[in-house]
Amino acid sequence: MRELLGGPGTWGGLWLRAAQVAFAAASIGVMASAAGFAGYTAFCYLIASMGLQALWSLGLAFLDGYALKVKMDLNNAVLVSLFVVGDWVTAILSFAASCSAAGVVVLFERDITFCRRYYQLPCSRFQLATAFAFLSWSLSATSALIMFWLLASF
Amino acid sequence: MRELLGGPGTWGGLWLRAAQVAFAAASIGVMASAAGFAGYTAFCYLIASMGLQALWSLGLAFLDGYALKVKMDLNNAVLVSLFVVGDWVTAILSFAASCSAAGVVVLFERDITFCRRYYQLPCSRFQLATAFAFLSWSLSATSALIMFWLLASF
Repeated sequence: MRELLGGPGTWGGLWLRAAQVAFAAASIGVMASAAGFAGYTAFCYLIASMGLQALWSLGLAFLDGYALKVKMDLNNAVLVSLFVVGDWVTAILSFAASCSAAGVVVLFERDITFCRRYYQLPCSRFQLATAFAFLSWSLSATSALIMFWLLASF
Repeated sequence: MRELLGGPGTWGGLWLRAAQVAFAAASIGVMASAAGFAGYTAFCYLIASMGLQALWSLGLAFLDGYALKVKMDLNNAVLVSLFVVGDWVTAILSFAASCSAAGVVVLFERDITFCRRYYQLPCSRFQLATAFAFLSWSLSATSALIMFWLLASF
């Protein structure tokens, strides 16, 4: 079993998880501070999905930190299978949420020009939250691929 | 190299590709017949992405058919790597297009109630096209997983 950059119980893995939590939390924070977001299903779903992403990544970040501290080896097939399933589920949900939020943001911005007509609508916050969600998803997808690779190499 | 259900050059693979083409074509047909779809970026992107999906799957369906006819073996690492990359790219694009179209459909239907206010808007066609796109994506994702599995088993 070789050590893989970003695998479970490594410094790379810990940083990857921490960055996922940070971007997901930023996305939730920006979206929750945008007035009237609750009227749009896609944005509510974005918050729910980023919340799940943040919780999952936070849990794994603590596990990585603990494993680093007590020098525990997390590279066993059962644990890695669990990480693979969780990572793939959260990554797919995050991607779906990011894409649907992006679809709505583009609609507001370009197609039905809500952003120009109703300038109390916090469009820039919607955009920023969606961008953070995409960043969180891209790191989550990286983790999911690394875990899948690890599982395949057992 | 074992034969995998739905792998390249098998009857299962041919059916899977044919179903992908059928659902993608149905999605394009329904969306293109919906008046005014061109005013919405997400729906234009859905057509573009389903077009790519249909072309790619059609090409592979022909290849599968040819391989079945002349009893050619498509199970070699170079070809399967090519299929993996193509399948993953088209599957991810289809998923992104389906999710953003679904985000816009839900927005029209529930959040800003465009469907009730403007009944010339062909909401049911938008919904049907999005549903077909999700079906096409789910089969495309199945193919992508089968190809990845095949590649991993070389």
